[in-house]
Amino acid sequence: MSYTSQRPLFVSFVGGSSGLWRIERMYPVVGEGLPVADRLDVRESFTLSTVQEGLWTLRGVTSNARYIIREEADELTRRQEGLMRPTATCAALIPIRKTEAWWALAQDERRRIFEESSHHTQVGLEYLPAIARRLHHSRELGEPFDFLTWFEYAPEHQSAFEELVKRLRETEEWQYVDREIDLRLRR
Amino acid sequence: MSYTSQRPLFVSFVGGSSGLWRIERMYPVVGEGLPVADRLDVRESFTLSTVQEGLWTLRGVTSNARYIIREEADELTRRQEGLMRPTATCAALIPIRKTEAWWALAQDERRRIFEESSHHTQVGLEYLPAIARRLHHSRELGEPFDFLTWFEYAPEHQSAFEELVKRLRETEEWQYVDREIDLRLRR
Repeated sequence: MSYTSQRPLFVSFVGGSSGLWRIERMYPVVGEGLPVADRLDVRESFTLSTVQEGLWTLRGVTSNARYIIREEADELTRRQEGLMRPTATCAALIPIRKTEAWWALAQDERRRIFEESSHHTQVGLEYLPAIARRLHHSRELGEPFDFLTWFEYAPEHQSAFEELVKRLRETEEWQYVDREIDLRLRR
Repeated sequence: MSYTSQRPLFVSFVGGSSGLWRIERMYPVVGEGLPVADRLDVRESFTLSTVQEGLWTLRGVTSNARYIIREEADELTRRQEGLMRPTATCAALIPIRKTEAWWALAQDERRRIFEESSHHTQVGLEYLPAIARRLHHSRELGEPFDFLTWFEYAPEHQSAFEELVKRLRETEEWQYVDREIDLRLRR
């Protein structure tokens, strides 16, 4: 997730027969899954594209953080590391869609559920710098998911990662998730 | 601006020689202008398009409100009216871009400037229902502007509209605007 200012980056996750990442496992957590693919290609661009490639293409765009306050932003900046660290050969892609009820909430209500009740940022902070992540927004691109979150970590942090996703799925925020797929990858 | 849940709507504002709206006036408030065009066509779709048409095409997407809290949302819902009221034959399109400094702020800092200091929502409320508006997000579509705001009002509310934009341009929030164009239209 990006907590410093930057130009939005468009990212296409293309599932098919080519790409750096081998898809080891893919399963629907809630709702409909995706067609089985062997590999994932992650393509970054500063230009929006609507091209569909491979068996499926999921698109998202990085943006400013919507809920975190200054103190949390500073803590994240201090502790997080970038993507593509040589040791981080494991990745996960978790597309989620939230319900209409979530999107009908006002900002203060979403912030309360996101952080004061679900401790989303605080939970994520506990796993830094081991588990790097980047959030992509998809809802305003007319995509089937609202968010695509990409995680990278070394094989020895596999169980920490399982714990992280388990904790997030138990939160009040996750009651608003009506479609979720869990993809695990290796390079 | 939409304060109730809905599917994002993609809107293309096409400046050229056709369209319902006649462009009566267009001037850059801050930064670079746009090529002169006679008419504006407003095209709505549930599908994202990257097509460029006319002399220029500005694209945006409606989304959930990012700053307003529940009390403000309810007040807006009670007081606002829709677009295309028969009497509302005047319109304005105001594309703005905000500085990198704005986008580097955390959510609590942006909210403080947006509402507690600049009273953006409260000022807008004073002019309801006379001046209807809809906000479109453009930053995450890779567009030259961050936001496109569309206003509609009857000719007798022209001076109220001038007052509204004047008040907003005097706020702390507007110090973060580094490109702004003001287009006035009639149908």
